[in-house]
Amino acid sequence: MTAPWDEFGLISACFRPLSVAEPGAFALTDDAAILTPSPGCDWVVTADALVAGIHFFPDDPPASIARKALRVNLSDLAAMGAKPRCVFLTCAFPDSLDKHWINQFAEGLGDDIQDFGIALAGGDVVATPGPLTLSITAMGEVPSGRGLRRSGVKDGDVIVVTGTIGDAALGLDMQRLAAPDALDGPDRAYLLDRYRHPSPRLQAGAILRDAAHAAMDISDGLLADVRHLAEASKVDILLDARRVPHSGAVQRWLDLAPAAQERVLTGGDDYELVFSCAVDDFAKLSAEIGATGVQVTAIGRAEAGEGRVYRYETGRRQLVAVPGGHRHGAEANGSLAE
Amino acid sequence: MTAPWDEFGLISACFRPLSVAEPGAFALTDDAAILTPSPGCDWVVTADALVAGIHFFPDDPPASIARKALRVNLSDLAAMGAKPRCVFLTCAFPDSLDKHWINQFAEGLGDDIQDFGIALAGGDVVATPGPLTLSITAMGEVPSGRGLRRSGVKDGDVIVVTGTIGDAALGLDMQRLAAPDALDGPDRAYLLDRYRHPSPRLQAGAILRDAAHAAMDISDGLLADVRHLAEASKVDILLDARRVPHSGAVQRWLDLAPAAQERVLTGGDDYELVFSCAVDDFAKLSAEIGATGVQVTAIGRAEAGEGRVYRYETGRRQLVAVPGGHRHGAEANGSLAE
Repeated sequence: MTAPWDEFGLISACFRPLSVAEPGAFALTDDAAILTPSPGCDWVVTADALVAGIHFFPDDPPASIARKALRVNLSDLAAMGAKPRCVFLTCAFPDSLDKHWINQFAEGLGDDIQDFGIALAGGDVVATPGPLTLSITAMGEVPSGRGLRRSGVKDGDVIVVTGTIGDAALGLDMQRLAAPDALDGPDRAYLLDRYRHPSPRLQAGAILRDAAHAAMDISDGLLADVRHLAEASKVDILLDARRVPHSGAVQRWLDLAPAAQERVLTGGDDYELVFSCAVDDFAKLSAEIGATGVQVTAIGRAEAGEGRVYRYETGRRQLVAVPGGHRHGAEANGSLAE
Repeated sequence: MTAPWDEFGLISACFRPLSVAEPGAFALTDDAAILTPSPGCDWVVTADALVAGIHFFPDDPPASIARKALRVNLSDLAAMGAKPRCVFLTCAFPDSLDKHWINQFAEGLGDDIQDFGIALAGGDVVATPGPLTLSITAMGEVPSGRGLRRSGVKDGDVIVVTGTIGDAALGLDMQRLAAPDALDGPDRAYLLDRYRHPSPRLQAGAILRDAAHAAMDISDGLLADVRHLAEASKVDILLDARRVPHSGAVQRWLDLAPAAQERVLTGGDDYELVFSCAVDDFAKLSAEIGATGVQVTAIGRAEAGEGRVYRYETGRRQLVAVPGGHRHGAEANGSLAE
């Protein structure tokens, strides 16, 4: 097996330009990067792997694959309230990818790296006889001791989400299965874009450091992740699914096919934040985050308990069964930092 | 495709125990790890990917695969003079791996994590229809501004290697092809062990911070990596291949098959350090590193130049052709941080 690309050439042409913003990356020419911490800050670090055919479609645009891989990791940093600084990328590229594909991949990655004000600080390129496999480690910084955790939800807290829920799951369904025939072109384009290009809520995360008690990002599905929050905080959470915010596109899909509501709540890949705060702090946080262009919506409340989630839109508490979590299609997927 | 393991169960049973030494890993239960830098230190960060069938044999012992993946990264930290602190691991596991295999993998990783005094601080587990693919990001610390670089070789420096060269390459050949029939059992076991379980020269790296001008680890082959050193430092390096230190096993192999000498010099996977220092500092460094049980050997010298490598064991300078570098068999492989 011989790859149709030369890896040292690739690195030099495609990836080196992505390192310029971090002098400690040494233009990707040394054994490792050396990063000087900002004074008074902790590092926040997360790693995710993505496999073609499982986490994205092999024929998705290469720039979209790169951008999603990056953003999924930045979303974890957002959930901790961190400001992203750099990423390390390992790529196992199949032979079937040509230079043109890899160029487009690197361009998409480079655009996002620039937009998010970060740098590629290192990594690895290898050939694989298997599917394209990417692993990204993202590093960010947060003022010492002020990183947001999942475990801080308090009795009486309001449970809040950023943005809208279900866009990505229906975008995935649309690409994989089918959408209601009557759904129009702009709605289809919107949902697909939300699936391919999640928006890590970095500004919201930074604002939340001031007043939120707990936060995490929604990757496994709203119900599963709210349950993670409840378990980590050892509280019960009561959700009103009627309050879960939908985009216009999702609302129109639900009008045509109401059964998709459960998919919206469990589908995952939202990469919105779910957080908790004191009732008294909600209005201020809502205004501050709203000013960045991101809506926030209260969808429930926490009470003393043992890590369970109840829905109460029927007026009666209904225990949410332990969800298996989002499996990105039929596949198993678990994060070491969930 | 359904994997015969439950990823959340795996993480909890196999990987969570590996995180205990780092409180900021939150027992792998949050979105990311939060790491507080040691006062006065920079972080040194490196990432490598390994693919079954390319970087290791799929039927290698799972504990050996885990340990090699870890050590290859720690070797990069050693080359910068850093003290390792934690790693992030992403695993794309094929369905064909059962729980027993993964248990052994995690046990091997856990043994090394304990021996090296570090922690698993996060990562990801996903299923893949392709070969086992691992990516490790290793983080270490070094006193601020004192990380070792490749680019500091000075005119007149002596060029030095730790340990012995060629063990791993001949160990790989033995496993893949054949060894001379007369090579005995202990020699075979030694070479295989050196291929499977490299020894990152962390103590040597820390000592080198005091007096070495430049350092890197030898992964692509001695000649290729000495050339990287020469290029990064913009000097010429003269090597005497007769001085390159061999283990007893390699020496006996060469006695039986002298043609293997070129393989020793170019094979790679040594994970020894090559460094440069002033002639006057060599004896002291040699004694200090020797006291840790690791021999060092002067194999050449640097002079003003343009990044070329010459051999001079014949008494005449012979330019070393630009090597393609070690390709781990027939495969392409390039590190974003070379």
